[in-house]
Amino acid sequence: MLTRINLAEKLSRFSDHWNPRIIADVNDHQVKLVKVQGEFAWHSHADEDEMFLVIHGELTIELRDGAVTLGPGEMVVIPKGAEHRPVAREEVHLMLLEPRATKHTGDVETELTRHELQRI
Amino acid sequence: MLTRINLAEKLSRFSDHWNPRIIADVNDHQVKLVKVQGEFAWHSHADEDEMFLVIHGELTIELRDGAVTLGPGEMVVIPKGAEHRPVAREEVHLMLLEPRATKHTGDVETELTRHELQRI
Repeated sequence: MLTRINLAEKLSRFSDHWNPRIIADVNDHQVKLVKVQGEFAWHSHADEDEMFLVIHGELTIELRDGAVTLGPGEMVVIPKGAEHRPVAREEVHLMLLEPRATKHTGDVETELTRHELQRI
Repeated sequence: MLTRINLAEKLSRFSDHWNPRIIADVNDHQVKLVKVQGEFAWHSHADEDEMFLVIHGELTIELRDGAVTLGPGEMVVIPKGAEHRPVAREEVHLMLLEPRATKHTGDVETELTRHELQRI
């Protein structure tokens, strides 16, 4: 049998920021949910594209050459190698999609970096 | 610069059923949108997990050993090899995530099978 995954129910299980939870595996990729607020660290992923889909709130993703702002139902793919910094003035709920091997903050180590992600 | 992808705007661009549109590439995977209504063909994908996320409507995914019904904001991963048939009594809007190599109806050829998907 299949497991139905309800995004709102999964989001209700945690409240901390910048700490993604794994909710599903799709081949070698993982689907994650995360709540964010404030500014994250500038980082990039040399080998992995990364998808952000906004579920709640408004997220700005800063790039070295500009920025894009996303509302609910909007998404973007950060190409491998592109330096980026997510910024959320108020709390934002996101779905992430990236390869299992993706490091949280790329090769940058910050106080926000998580090495082991919880599965919910 | 990044391209902001608005799911509602993309969905407004087509109205036919069972004809997925590619909206993004994430590594070797593709994100697709599709509108469905009625019963699809029983099929499986030998080598690929496939993710369904319901955006609008109610989708039942029948399996040989049961069924799961999803509403908006609910998702499921169909494991590789699992025979399944999506069924929608009324129109459903879905996001799909699967490897680029995934065939629409697996190794089954039906009148609904699409070989070339449009990119929007």
